[in-house]
Amino acid sequence: MDYVYGPGKNHLFVPGPVNIPEPVLRAMNRNNEDYRSPAIPAMTKNLLEDVKKIFKTSAGTPFLIPTTGTGAWESALTNTLSPGDRTVSFLIGQFSLLWIDQQQRLNFNVDVVESEWGQGANLDILAEKLAADHSHTIKAICIVHNETATGVTNNLATVRKLLDHYRHPALLLVDGVSSICALDFRMDEWGVDVALTGSQKALSLPTGLGIVCASPKALEASKSAKSVRVFFDWNDYLKFYKLGTFWPYTPSIQLLYGLRAALDLIFEEGLGNVIARHTRMGKATRLAVEAWGLKNCTQKEEWYSDTVTAVLVPPYIDSAEIVKRAWKRYNMSLGLGLNKVAGKVFRIGHLGNLNELQLLGCLAGVEMILKDVGYPVKLGSGVAAACAYLQNNIPMIPSRI
Amino acid sequence: MDYVYGPGKNHLFVPGPVNIPEPVLRAMNRNNEDYRSPAIPAMTKNLLEDVKKIFKTSAGTPFLIPTTGTGAWESALTNTLSPGDRTVSFLIGQFSLLWIDQQQRLNFNVDVVESEWGQGANLDILAEKLAADHSHTIKAICIVHNETATGVTNNLATVRKLLDHYRHPALLLVDGVSSICALDFRMDEWGVDVALTGSQKALSLPTGLGIVCASPKALEASKSAKSVRVFFDWNDYLKFYKLGTFWPYTPSIQLLYGLRAALDLIFEEGLGNVIARHTRMGKATRLAVEAWGLKNCTQKEEWYSDTVTAVLVPPYIDSAEIVKRAWKRYNMSLGLGLNKVAGKVFRIGHLGNLNELQLLGCLAGVEMILKDVGYPVKLGSGVAAACAYLQNNIPMIPSRI
Amino acid sequence: MDYVYGPGKNHLFVPGPVNIPEPVLRAMNRNNEDYRSPAIPAMTKNLLEDVKKIFKTSAGTPFLIPTTGTGAWESALTNTLSPGDRTVSFLIGQFSLLWIDQQQRLNFNVDVVESEWGQGANLDILAEKLAADHSHTIKAICIVHNETATGVTNNLATVRKLLDHYRHPALLLVDGVSSICALDFRMDEWGVDVALTGSQKALSLPTGLGIVCASPKALEASKSAKSVRVFFDWNDYLKFYKLGTFWPYTPSIQLLYGLRAALDLIFEEGLGNVIARHTRMGKATRLAVEAWGLKNCTQKEEWYSDTVTAVLVPPYIDSAEIVKRAWKRYNMSLGLGLNKVAGKVFRIGHLGNLNELQLLGCLAGVEMILKDVGYPVKLGSGVAAACAYLQNNIPMIPSRI
Amino acid sequence: MDYVYGPGKNHLFVPGPVNIPEPVLRAMNRNNEDYRSPAIPAMTKNLLEDVKKIFKTSAGTPFLIPTTGTGAWESALTNTLSPGDRTVSFLIGQFSLLWIDQQQRLNFNVDVVESEWGQGANLDILAEKLAADHSHTIKAICIVHNETATGVTNNLATVRKLLDHYRHPALLLVDGVSSICALDFRMDEWGVDVALTGSQKALSLPTGLGIVCASPKALEASKSAKSVRVFFDWNDYLKFYKLGTFWPYTPSIQLLYGLRAALDLIFEEGLGNVIARHTRMGKATRLAVEAWGLKNCTQKEEWYSDTVTAVLVPPYIDSAEIVKRAWKRYNMSLGLGLNKVAGKVFRIGHLGNLNELQLLGCLAGVEMILKDVGYPVKLGSGVAAACAYLQNNIPMIPSRI
Repeated sequence: MDYVYGPGKNHLFVPGPVNIPEPVLRAMNRNNEDYRSPAIPAMTKNLLEDVKKIFKTSAGTPFLIPTTGTGAWESALTNTLSPGDRTVSFLIGQFSLLWIDQQQRLNFNVDVVESEWGQGANLDILAEKLAADHSHTIKAICIVHNETATGVTNNLATVRKLLDHYRHPALLLVDGVSSICALDFRMDEWGVDVALTGSQKALSLPTGLGIVCASPKALEASKSAKSVRVFFDWNDYLKFYKLGTFWPYTPSIQLLYGLRAALDLIFEEGLGNVIARHTRMGKATRLAVEAWGLKNCTQKEEWYSDTVTAVLVPPYIDSAEIVKRAWKRYNMSLGLGLNKVAGKVFRIGHLGNLNELQLLGCLAGVEMILKDVGYPVKLGSGVAAACAYLQNNIPMIPSRI
Repeated sequence: MDYVYGPGKNHLFVPGPVNIPEPVLRAMNRNNEDYRSPAIPAMTKNLLEDVKKIFKTSAGTPFLIPTTGTGAWESALTNTLSPGDRTVSFLIGQFSLLWIDQQQRLNFNVDVVESEWGQGANLDILAEKLAADHSHTIKAICIVHNETATGVTNNLATVRKLLDHYRHPALLLVDGVSSICALDFRMDEWGVDVALTGSQKALSLPTGLGIVCASPKALEASKSAKSVRVFFDWNDYLKFYKLGTFWPYTPSIQLLYGLRAALDLIFEEGLGNVIARHTRMGKATRLAVEAWGLKNCTQKEEWYSDTVTAVLVPPYIDSAEIVKRAWKRYNMSLGLGLNKVAGKVFRIGHLGNLNELQLLGCLAGVEMILKDVGYPVKLGSGVAAACAYLQNNIPMIPSRI
Repeated sequence: MDYVYGPGKNHLFVPGPVNIPEPVLRAMNRNNEDYRSPAIPAMTKNLLEDVKKIFKTSAGTPFLIPTTGTGAWESALTNTLSPGDRTVSFLIGQFSLLWIDQQQRLNFNVDVVESEWGQGANLDILAEKLAADHSHTIKAICIVHNETATGVTNNLATVRKLLDHYRHPALLLVDGVSSICALDFRMDEWGVDVALTGSQKALSLPTGLGIVCASPKALEASKSAKSVRVFFDWNDYLKFYKLGTFWPYTPSIQLLYGLRAALDLIFEEGLGNVIARHTRMGKATRLAVEAWGLKNCTQKEEWYSDTVTAVLVPPYIDSAEIVKRAWKRYNMSLGLGLNKVAGKVFRIGHLGNLNELQLLGCLAGVEMILKDVGYPVKLGSGVAAACAYLQNNIPMIPSRI
Repeated sequence: MDYVYGPGKNHLFVPGPVNIPEPVLRAMNRNNEDYRSPAIPAMTKNLLEDVKKIFKTSAGTPFLIPTTGTGAWESALTNTLSPGDRTVSFLIGQFSLLWIDQQQRLNFNVDVVESEWGQGANLDILAEKLAADHSHTIKAICIVHNETATGVTNNLATVRKLLDHYRHPALLLVDGVSSICALDFRMDEWGVDVALTGSQKALSLPTGLGIVCASPKALEASKSAKSVRVFFDWNDYLKFYKLGTFWPYTPSIQLLYGLRAALDLIFEEGLGNVIARHTRMGKATRLAVEAWGLKNCTQKEEWYSDTVTAVLVPPYIDSAEIVKRAWKRYNMSLGLGLNKVAGKVFRIGHLGNLNELQLLGCLAGVEMILKDVGYPVKLGSGVAAACAYLQNNIPMIPSRI
């Protein structure tokens, strides 16, 4: 039935795919339907309106694309840019690296601004580049809001300020895969032109929807963008939006109902409360890491991520061993260190539909594994630090107060 | 959709109903079927064989009755006894109290042997009664294996020894509701005549099956037992067993498939490993309680229960407030103190398909609540104690080693 | 995974358990919960109010008992009657026979009024008995509203008229297992004292809830009824109703959420529309039977049942063979002939959450099987007759008009 | 809960998405998992082996891409061809039209070979083109195996014969979206270089997997193909295949388990039996259409499709009205006529996990709707014709015989 059984719940603390809430599982537990019946367009119309709320946009146009985050990236790039276009892109970890690789393979001319892994995007260099670019050769700034590999959150408000300061018309393309619906993300206020996320992240759905939102300026750019695209072409969507049938090709009925349920849960809790919950989770995790005497891969507080924490282990420990034992022994899934930080960090994802006691169980498990691999952790110390914080920062569950 | 929503998983630590594993939920996610088709009898035949394994009986005859534990009690009593029959029954907590109440309302003549709540059955008095009962007026000994209200486990081997010592023919009826499939229970070895459990306990199913197992001696007794019964009459089952159609009335198709999946999981883990897991859970919980400076309601180690721990709170704290806040704030369900121990104890159920990190999350939550209600707990202390033990007692997950 | 696989849907046309609608399956696809949390009593309160609507009672008190129809019968009898009490009970088929057997085993003094199977309850004899019973020795009239074995619906309004005419105070106990929520049933108007159904019938849920509704007069009777009962005792429920915690023992969380969803569906369609749909289904089925040249087991139109049709086969055919082949070949489940009509009838259940095209698929399947077992049916004839009727009696789907 | 409720089952007879079998729904009813755990690669390895069986290939390399059929097309084209490459593509209906549109937008040089809608691919013209193409400028033949819009099945064996006859090295790219796993498809025998399908078609899963299978020659071609691609690049998959982790980006855990269950069902029934079942369904449907006095959109028997039948309606009837009423009144989903045949045909999909009685219910429903829109159909006539055929062609359900 299952490939590998273990008793009790799987403790899923990778930074995506994340835990699916029971009401969402229920909503998706259904047969296929004809997506050309009156029911599905009616539902889609509401979904498109509601999905804009999690991007904090009223001007944007959302696309629910049957793809993953990688496809959503491709949709953002190919609809707005032409081969040879110059982009500025920040390399700060494995996922920004992969996006840059995609940009290069799509034949854009990428200015790669690299930082040490564990640091945020170097916005000073961005400022320099913008200042120097009098002829506006830079067509787009591509930046991850939150680098999932290192647990680094970039400051998008500053990016917008720089663009405004230099009156630079470059498009602002943001990978919000591990941020939107968990961190404070403000598409309209920050003048983001394309923002995107994946269903399996903070929305707490299965993988399968790349959710992309385009500003009016991005839509305008799509009219002249010469990148070859068909499956990812926004224009096909826009044609069916006008027809009121919404879908250029077959959507997953189950994911539509799942998205409906996921948004309902988020609105019931309140998007502000959801974000505050992630803030608590992030802070509690970092306090535990500190209590263990370990270092956060993220080098400065300004970049701390409230959705994922990458924990540096001492040189005499292989972080992959921690991940392996967590899974084998405690049915817990932690994130591996990737590429440059392979073996050096393990990651605790704390995003999505998650609560305090789930996290504390995870932290207790990490302590036992740390001890097991030879790190002299004081058992209970991380949990104690997290509890001390959490106990004074009471969760807000509107329906229960 | 739900009556009261909270983010993340509900932490279900009442001593039943307990968490249902995902494979079991999946198995039950199905339409009704005709229970007279060839499929259901074929399945039932195997279920009846396999269910005997969790009772550790080869001689017993199991009945899967569409009822609860209360109905299972009634089935055990009415099929083996006649009105006016003398029983010896031990009052050690709310559930033994309720069973005694049932025995009295069914017109048996009950010798109630009461202990202070927190103590086990007084087997000295049993010995006296057996010694004195030369004419064998005692028809049955009724005893709970594990009293769910106080977390007390009785020693059934001793009961059997006493019966054998005095060569007393009384039937031995055992409520194994919160023990079977979690604690070491040996129907044949201990000469238990009727043992029973409910599907929502250690089997980790929904409520709805009262599972009763009768020894040959109990079946023999049922032929002359004069208690009025129809719905609970074993004879109707036996008739259909012979016919090979198995069901005198409509079973729940979903629970049959669920039971199949639940047994498969138990056998995959290994019944011995399942019981060892409960032993670890019980010990870890008690170590935490001790670290908090609180007392176990169970007064002596010999009675400690590995499926539920009732924790005594100081007089200045209302234990019901702990249960209430756990639910409101942390989406955690703890057990209330019942009847004589209302307000004085709260209960942590640690039975069923549960693992270490789930329990540690619960313990961390209890610590925060204890502090919140004014008890001077050292945050992290209970988790530390539990982790220190668990870290040296590695779980046995056969498929992952 | 399944015991016997066949491609496509199982065509479930036994008269219970019936098809569960997808929204109900979804609602039940959930983990256990603590039934003492604030959520479950809040939900139960609403359920108890709403369940009264399907009985058409405002004065009645409902009980949701974790049992089957057989248990619901026992609840109705033992709470209202004392051993030795005289009842009048109508034997018209296998299920009324079983109920009478139960009454006798519970030590009531049963006047059995037998009819030929295929006929309704003989109310002339009831009239005679009531007329003769000046001293009111008859304590209860026990009658099935719809005999599931023969497809016979009794006229309850007439029973009430007779009781009123003779000013007889006997209780009126009604088995509504295969009628309530499908046929027009009016508890208050007909002065029914106890009515009952099972969750797996017209409510279209899994087996597991015996739903019993008691009039004020029945509740009054329960105070002096001397039948021994514990599990089925209404008094235990009433005690917890007063406390506001509602449950004397553990309910199935899944069935509560399922019942909520089932009632929501019924109210969305409209109870009147639900009943009208059953009327159409019954009529269409009977027209098909007529077109096949076969006879309805039910001998007169006044008794025709709109929830189940028992079809008589010619003497040279074994009706069990029809049922067997339907299942093996077409994944269709039909009802066997039981007891006196074994081998002579097969039954088509057409109750619960079912629509026209499902039924027509069944009728087409029956035609092919009939031909296969050697009956000279004209293929398509039954479907044609049913379609001709249905095509002029358009279903009422409020949300789609 | 649902957008538009109707009682009973939805009768889903669009040619995709199709009915999902219950065991598959169950398998997918699960939380997310870490796709980097040991479990998922182990499972993926087996899936890739098993999926080759439904393509009847041993030499091919399969890719399970998180996309739809449209994306699968794009994957087939961009991995094997370079901009400017000449393709021969057959326009015979809406889906071949859309594929040709994609080929043109991807900058291939497409020889469009158009047939009247209702006819198959004109292979005489293919022969001419191949004969004339001495310099092998044709790089690929692109052909749909089954045109879903018109119910036309092309003869792929003949295409292969022509290519062999003219010793032409062009790649053979086949859209098997509405054929693979339902019609007889032989990748290796017919020398197909890329074949593809979508999960929501004959595999009877939700939408979300584009399943593409490449021959060694296609893989070789992919090394020099210059079409820009990232998301759809086979090379990223091959890299992870070598690593044994299999996934370049996040797969849908649910669809993997669903695919596992779907393949298990197909192998349990037997792929040959599955195809034979589709043959029966197609034939039965066409006999009904003939009995109604209506014409099949497909003009010759050699092109008849066993997965979808497009039915021509008389000029005085709008076929869209049939589709609309079927849904509103009988909860049945039929396929609309698309583009050139809009208003002129409605489509009955009869593919996937479907059985005889489901189809017969659909046919009965179509009859009632036809009468309702004013077509003088003889009610029951189509069902009678279908039954007469089916009754002599007994379904093969291995587990039930």
